[in-house]
Amino acid sequence: MIQPPPAQPGMMEQEVDTPALIIDLDAFEHNLDTMMRMLAPTGAKLRAHAKTHKSPIIAQLQIARGAVGQCVQKVGEAEALAWGGVKDILVSNEVVGMQKLRRFAALADIATVAICVDSLFHVKQLETAARDANRRLTALVEIDAGGGRCGANPGAESVELAKRIASSRHLKFGGLQAYHGGAQHRRTHEERERAIVHAVAVTTQTLEGINAAGLKCGIVGGGGTGTFMLEARSGVYTEIQAGSYVFMDADYGRNIDDRKESVGAFRQSLFVLSTVMSQAREGTAVIDAGLKALTFESGMPLIWERPGVTYVDPSCEHGQLKVEAGIEAPSLGEKLRVVPPHCDPCVDRYDWYVGVRSGKVECLWPVAARGCIS
Amino acid sequence: MIQPPPAQPGMMEQEVDTPALIIDLDAFEHNLDTMMRMLAPTGAKLRAHAKTHKSPIIAQLQIARGAVGQCVQKVGEAEALAWGGVKDILVSNEVVGMQKLRRFAALADIATVAICVDSLFHVKQLETAARDANRRLTALVEIDAGGGRCGANPGAESVELAKRIASSRHLKFGGLQAYHGGAQHRRTHEERERAIVHAVAVTTQTLEGINAAGLKCGIVGGGGTGTFMLEARSGVYTEIQAGSYVFMDADYGRNIDDRKESVGAFRQSLFVLSTVMSQAREGTAVIDAGLKALTFESGMPLIWERPGVTYVDPSCEHGQLKVEAGIEAPSLGEKLRVVPPHCDPCVDRYDWYVGVRSGKVECLWPVAARGCIS
Repeated sequence: MIQPPPAQPGMMEQEVDTPALIIDLDAFEHNLDTMMRMLAPTGAKLRAHAKTHKSPIIAQLQIARGAVGQCVQKVGEAEALAWGGVKDILVSNEVVGMQKLRRFAALADIATVAICVDSLFHVKQLETAARDANRRLTALVEIDAGGGRCGANPGAESVELAKRIASSRHLKFGGLQAYHGGAQHRRTHEERERAIVHAVAVTTQTLEGINAAGLKCGIVGGGGTGTFMLEARSGVYTEIQAGSYVFMDADYGRNIDDRKESVGAFRQSLFVLSTVMSQAREGTAVIDAGLKALTFESGMPLIWERPGVTYVDPSCEHGQLKVEAGIEAPSLGEKLRVVPPHCDPCVDRYDWYVGVRSGKVECLWPVAARGCIS
Repeated sequence: MIQPPPAQPGMMEQEVDTPALIIDLDAFEHNLDTMMRMLAPTGAKLRAHAKTHKSPIIAQLQIARGAVGQCVQKVGEAEALAWGGVKDILVSNEVVGMQKLRRFAALADIATVAICVDSLFHVKQLETAARDANRRLTALVEIDAGGGRCGANPGAESVELAKRIASSRHLKFGGLQAYHGGAQHRRTHEERERAIVHAVAVTTQTLEGINAAGLKCGIVGGGGTGTFMLEARSGVYTEIQAGSYVFMDADYGRNIDDRKESVGAFRQSLFVLSTVMSQAREGTAVIDAGLKALTFESGMPLIWERPGVTYVDPSCEHGQLKVEAGIEAPSLGEKLRVVPPHCDPCVDRYDWYVGVRSGKVECLWPVAARGCIS
């Protein structure tokens, strides 16, 4: 079921029903603009990742500022964007199964779409979908840029896949996907740089093989909010796929970035607004945002601008706060901003963004690709 | 957005699009029946917790077997059940805010409803909602049965609240809510028993105070899947609020229950069906169920009936599996059943249950209260 919107434009933030997903619009627009300003001198383009925001409205705000298109992880996300008017979409992930690939092929009628493969199995399934739909579909080869998750081995194996795609009557070789997800949350610049030096090296090596085979590599894509300037300056990556920079979260907040070249350049713009719903014991308070309003795989949420108040224990519908001695506890009924530990899956908990500026609700945007996990 | 159903009745399980939420109907019905059989000799009634299943269809299956009604945690869940025909619903939780309390009051027209309070603040807000709606609303006093989360202090404080409710022209005192959530997942019977001995003691003490004040305590509710026979046999609890028993999960599976008096009596009936979507490296496989298809606050999911295959690392849309040396790896495109770490929030990730019997899809039930976090 889609939930009713928790607010109306013109309301004060404190009147919004909770839990609700709040965007601080000033911080959000700062983030959109900052990314474009940072990428401009590098020559790399932004293909922002919609797995964070899941919204054609936000996609269009990025595109209006110069993004060349969007990335998604799932066909359902691609549908939500394409149906909402986004014209250039890369599924930066492998997709298996003819049901999904038929849906992907259908999108080629209304948008420029591409998808990733990392094995011959994927190429053959995609080829079948393309043939059945009588369309030529674009495939990028994903290489393992160091994350050890998906991606063919860089070098010969990936070059062979690229050649196989290029030789197909039904497919078009679109380039390389070389995202290093594991590098994004490494805490120091040195650790992140080491990871991306490796990613750049294996991408360069693969690219040379592809060029030697006489193939043209349209896109070389990768880079996230934790590392994107390293990829952008590499001279190898043509497209940056950062997503979280629009919102930020508690986990990215733990990255060290004194240089203001990644997370340090952005502001926290995403919050879960929550109400203190019980306060039966001194030194504690319980808010109405628990395991269904937030996710906890990246640690505990933070309570925004309330020093001495800590989120210590979630249950399905409760968040237990601890209040340090000497600190005034939030009062029963009070609404608190909570910083999500991890923005992408947290957004997926909500049907609506409530856009707030100067304490007032300005807009309500549907999380259009909420729940698009297939 | 509501997602399209991932299957049609008559399909084989292996044809279901993934990720999908599967109910093994034989195991599920075994669980429904087993609970009634176990409670029968104790005299305690079942008021099953719908925060697990979120479905009027499943609620009605429980009621048809003798459950007196349903518990929920949120007004939105109560609405989904009442609108779907469930006639007796307890919000086993505090609710703060006039928007929500007005919605709660409206439900009194179509169902017997009650709600919990643990402070005078809650009583006054509920009184206002009742007066505005010109209805008499039923409130239970939640006592802290040992969990230290919500709940007034047992004894005098709770008795005073009960008297305050009973003296209101707009409210009716409905009984005590004495659920000990923290006890449910303690691993040994002895630990669970110690916790419930305490819960029974403080509930008895409070009950005596309430009786001494000349009040009648309609409901004494509590007990979850980990401990319910302890509460049911106590002679104090009148209603058992277990929810997870219908599905079970990996975390409950770690409770030790040689006596088959709690988790040991039930079978795993809930699974996330998932597809192997990449297999670029030996000894690994990547499935399409990650942070958006499962939740991870209770540890890692289990791969069902695939010894030597372990879920080791989630990301937004990926689950990395490790395959022990000498074990045949799942093949690319293969569909695997995954046991969720924690059933309640996992169900909230899906719009549809796919009911399966003997390998064949038998029914599709909407997760009607999905996303009802307010």
